[in-house]
Amino acid sequence: MPYISVEEHLPGITGLLEYRKDSAQPIRELTQLLLRGPSTLTEGERELIATIVSHNNECRFCTTAHTAAADLLLGESDTAAKIKQDIESAPVSEKMKALLTIARQVQQSGKHVTEASIQRAKQAGATDMEIHDTVLIAALFCLYNRYVDGLSTVAPQDPAFYKGLADRIVNHGYTRLPQGYDHLKKKTHS
Amino acid sequence: MPYISVEEHLPGITGLLEYRKDSAQPIRELTQLLLRGPSTLTEGERELIATIVSHNNECRFCTTAHTAAADLLLGESDTAAKIKQDIESAPVSEKMKALLTIARQVQQSGKHVTEASIQRAKQAGATDMEIHDTVLIAALFCLYNRYVDGLSTVAPQDPAFYKGLADRIVNHGYTRLPQGYDHLKKKTHS
Repeated sequence: MPYISVEEHLPGITGLLEYRKDSAQPIRELTQLLLRGPSTLTEGERELIATIVSHNNECRFCTTAHTAAADLLLGESDTAAKIKQDIESAPVSEKMKALLTIARQVQQSGKHVTEASIQRAKQAGATDMEIHDTVLIAALFCLYNRYVDGLSTVAPQDPAFYKGLADRIVNHGYTRLPQGYDHLKKKTHS
Repeated sequence: MPYISVEEHLPGITGLLEYRKDSAQPIRELTQLLLRGPSTLTEGERELIATIVSHNNECRFCTTAHTAAADLLLGESDTAAKIKQDIESAPVSEKMKALLTIARQVQQSGKHVTEASIQRAKQAGATDMEIHDTVLIAALFCLYNRYVDGLSTVAPQDPAFYKGLADRIVNHGYTRLPQGYDHLKKKTHS
């Protein structure tokens, strides 16, 4: 049971974003910009960064949601499953292996990011902006994971819930869209 | 030396917020709302939450900056110094001891926040919103600390820099104010 009174039919982050809508607004905007805005990283690659950070923070709600979003964007579920097990043997580019390694280091602490991991990313062709965005996306999911679990929100068991959520964040994005949102509420809580 | 090319005269978070201004905007707005917006927690109390999280994440730039801001708001430097050493013996209310304990738990992981620490806060009079804001402020500083250290930004040695920064965030807030900002640049880098 959540530590504060959120709407019962809104699990995980969804209830928190409704609980305080004014703080939700810039969180939504930042997420939309970093995960869906113009970037040389694909939306699928950026969802993999969100996934690996959430997985290592053991945040079940966020891990399941962003794994589902990555799967939908990539058109397969093998890559997200494999990066959670072992980055080095996962079917991603050398650049993505380097960036996912940086994201995992950020998940532990900013101080865990090494010169060697940054050099590896740069040698694999990563730009300063890609490194910047990887660090900031990883840091943002350290915020999300703590927000979701620190208030002990509920993570639904039903995979259909996360499929619905992935459909929403892939097809409508992270900003507030009342119509798409009502549609999701009806679909997942009927 | 920072891992990416930020402006040399802008240390810590200041260079990152200039590096990517579009992502800086919602980060600034969220911080302004949570640390300076309407709240039953004082601005000083909220800066103490930022301070203890940054301290436990060992982020020197953020710890020094938010300690200076807390000191300025509280009119003394004893409280911030003491909460970093030991929350229980620090000169703050029972409610603040409970909230600072929650913030420290969030710093470790969302999963570290215990039912007991939440109950203690509620018994000391903390509202759901105060608990919510404590968790979200702590989570936000986990983002900041990772952003600042994950990109290996520079933390100035000179205490005058942090006094100037504290003056800015206490008297002008966290949103972008070009005039106040230019004033700071001139003051701290002349």
